[in-house]
Amino acid sequence: MAEEKMKAIGVGILGLGTVGSGVYELLTRNGKLISLKSGVEIRVVKAADRDVSRKEALGIPDGIYTDSAEDVTDDPDVDIVIELIGGTGVARELSLRALSHGKHLVTANKALLAEYGSILYDEVLKNGIEFGYEASVGGGIPIIKTIRESLVGNRIDRIVGILNGTTNFILTKMTREGLDFKEALSIAQELGFAESDPTLDISGGDARHKITILASLAFKTLIDISSVYVEGIESIHERDMEYADELGFVLKLLAIAERNDGGVFVRVHPAFIQKDNPLAAVCWEDNAVMVYSDYLGKSMYYGKGAGKKPTASAVVADIVQIALRIKDTHKYNRSDYSFFEGLTVLPFDRSTARYYFRFNALDRPGILSRIAGILGEHRISIASVIQKETEEEHEHVPLIMITHDAVEKDVQAAIEKINGLSDVDGMTTIIRVIEEDPNG
Amino acid sequence: MAEEKMKAIGVGILGLGTVGSGVYELLTRNGKLISLKSGVEIRVVKAADRDVSRKEALGIPDGIYTDSAEDVTDDPDVDIVIELIGGTGVARELSLRALSHGKHLVTANKALLAEYGSILYDEVLKNGIEFGYEASVGGGIPIIKTIRESLVGNRIDRIVGILNGTTNFILTKMTREGLDFKEALSIAQELGFAESDPTLDISGGDARHKITILASLAFKTLIDISSVYVEGIESIHERDMEYADELGFVLKLLAIAERNDGGVFVRVHPAFIQKDNPLAAVCWEDNAVMVYSDYLGKSMYYGKGAGKKPTASAVVADIVQIALRIKDTHKYNRSDYSFFEGLTVLPFDRSTARYYFRFNALDRPGILSRIAGILGEHRISIASVIQKETEEEHEHVPLIMITHDAVEKDVQAAIEKINGLSDVDGMTTIIRVIEEDPNG
Repeated sequence: MAEEKMKAIGVGILGLGTVGSGVYELLTRNGKLISLKSGVEIRVVKAADRDVSRKEALGIPDGIYTDSAEDVTDDPDVDIVIELIGGTGVARELSLRALSHGKHLVTANKALLAEYGSILYDEVLKNGIEFGYEASVGGGIPIIKTIRESLVGNRIDRIVGILNGTTNFILTKMTREGLDFKEALSIAQELGFAESDPTLDISGGDARHKITILASLAFKTLIDISSVYVEGIESIHERDMEYADELGFVLKLLAIAERNDGGVFVRVHPAFIQKDNPLAAVCWEDNAVMVYSDYLGKSMYYGKGAGKKPTASAVVADIVQIALRIKDTHKYNRSDYSFFEGLTVLPFDRSTARYYFRFNALDRPGILSRIAGILGEHRISIASVIQKETEEEHEHVPLIMITHDAVEKDVQAAIEKINGLSDVDGMTTIIRVIEEDPNG
Repeated sequence: MAEEKMKAIGVGILGLGTVGSGVYELLTRNGKLISLKSGVEIRVVKAADRDVSRKEALGIPDGIYTDSAEDVTDDPDVDIVIELIGGTGVARELSLRALSHGKHLVTANKALLAEYGSILYDEVLKNGIEFGYEASVGGGIPIIKTIRESLVGNRIDRIVGILNGTTNFILTKMTREGLDFKEALSIAQELGFAESDPTLDISGGDARHKITILASLAFKTLIDISSVYVEGIESIHERDMEYADELGFVLKLLAIAERNDGGVFVRVHPAFIQKDNPLAAVCWEDNAVMVYSDYLGKSMYYGKGAGKKPTASAVVADIVQIALRIKDTHKYNRSDYSFFEGLTVLPFDRSTARYYFRFNALDRPGILSRIAGILGEHRISIASVIQKETEEEHEHVPLIMITHDAVEKDVQAAIEKINGLSDVDGMTTIIRVIEEDPNG
């Protein structure tokens, strides 16, 4: 057992395109960390792509890179095959080949799952292997795990999702800037949010794949994709968005699955939703899924729907989970309580932030310059100032400042000094300003 | 093995207050479903509360209800003890007692974890048992699982959370309605969003417990809560919120943990954030956590932070996960591919929605009545109408209608008929309107 634990889990990657490169990068770059966090070592044993330039670009060593997919599916040192080719042709063949060799399988391939799910599931069961597909729906949103594990106590009654980033980007652009569909599409293409052939996205086909997967999982019912209604956004007219705006609506491409009288509706189409619906705030390329459960009620999961990094992160999460199961070390109790970083907790007064100050200054000449002077002495520079008219009831001037980044200790010292000025009456209000992107 | 699989996992509940009642309810009501979904049977063996009236209220059978906690911790048929007493006194004693009896442990007790985490973790490791505490932070947000499992490939660099529903409710009320702190607090108390003694919430203490737990997990560093700076919202003045509004800021109580030069800052204090920060949209009693990872970048997790149902759902998810581990049946491959519901996918034309229509009507008398008549014949009733002035270039009247709930089939038939009218030129635009609460 102890010896078994030391052996790394071998991973073989099929396809080194965007997502495949991400997975290789992440496993390589954070390999040590992943091993410390999870208690299991993951090793890329083989990585295949027909395009040899990927070997160079990713710095893949000889012996690991191969241009032949069968070198991956058939390698006895590969425990888990990661299918990142996409499509339903070669990807399907190779996935089935990997399964027949007893490999565990991880995929980000929504088309394959939605169209050939029943074949895959059968083979997975027959071969008794592990199968991970978190990355196939909402890359940065752990929605598969959430439905399967976090909501296990609930009967799921309805799912309403914004599951396609390209169409959500286009619709956001149309809504905010009054552009027509073609203009918005071409901007999305320029910015890399739409493919040069955007058909699968704008027709609703991609969202249809995803809702088919989610509905099958949530309703424990194998959904035949041909029974899923789909309507895209190609014929959406910006005029309808304007009228709808007057009526309090926003247009989204929704993927919906809901129970109804012993059956389920599963469908994808453009829809108006009220502006105060939390899904209305899901803009640009973001995705979100609203899940309605019998006990919990509504819960919403929000994040990046696709892209190299969210998808690669989801693939790696599946790999680790499967590796832990193979090793039978999938327990909370080991690496979860290994506090290997042992970082020092730094004292609060060394922290930096921007600051909001409201000084209770008396309306006397020179007060602004005295306050600014003290701040300057303490290395605190002012980003903006608002000085209001003196208030009627008393002689205070509401004086508000926002600073650039400053250190808490300096701020405390400066404010103590300022509070002691004879022109300042009472305590200064200090509120920290926290940036979304502190280094951005 | 097959026989072992048939044996139910025994659960013992300590405390039948709000969350405990929810857990009992959920396990009882959805027991069959949970067993089908997960492949493991969970049985409540014992449930303890000093208040006997809970037995009646929940309909707990004799032999399962007890007023003695030791009947739970010491029962050989109890595999997993669920500690839902709260606080750090009795709850701590009983948790340690359960661990010493080799019971697995699930808790929603953030105070216990934040203040006595190191003792608990040691005992968990020593006794080789499973420990679940998803419900301790952000009940409806699976943030523990997300950090531990979904982000396992990433180094986490920063967490910024709105982790306390009471204070977020109060701050939202102050921001939106210009109330002062005391007024907003008393409304929160009336509506049940604040306790009669709200100290732990408004002082930031509850958020401090939660960020201590998250930081320990995310940074793999055991955080001593006494090193976590905390400042509450008691002295927030509505005037600062008004000024900040002019400057483009919103006030939130933030719990922050971030790496910095080989150490970490962990702190809780009121803070201004830009209005376009996604956390600014997290209002009322909702919670959210923004996680910054080295590879993935930003990801946000949003939901109900507390309350009976979210918390009970999280507890049940932990119970099932632990049960699967005990049984060693924690595999994707079994119940995950059991499509036991086998629901019928209903044809799209039987679905109902509200509808938006834009008719390309010619500006002729009586057209509105003819259209309304046809809709009426097809059981479609009109909720609102907008008729614009005739457009200059042509003789079309933009005529927009929103209907009440209607059936797709009826809509298709009615619109086909309307499109055939001589006064209607071209296709009617049909867009479905989807309600957030379809039955509400």
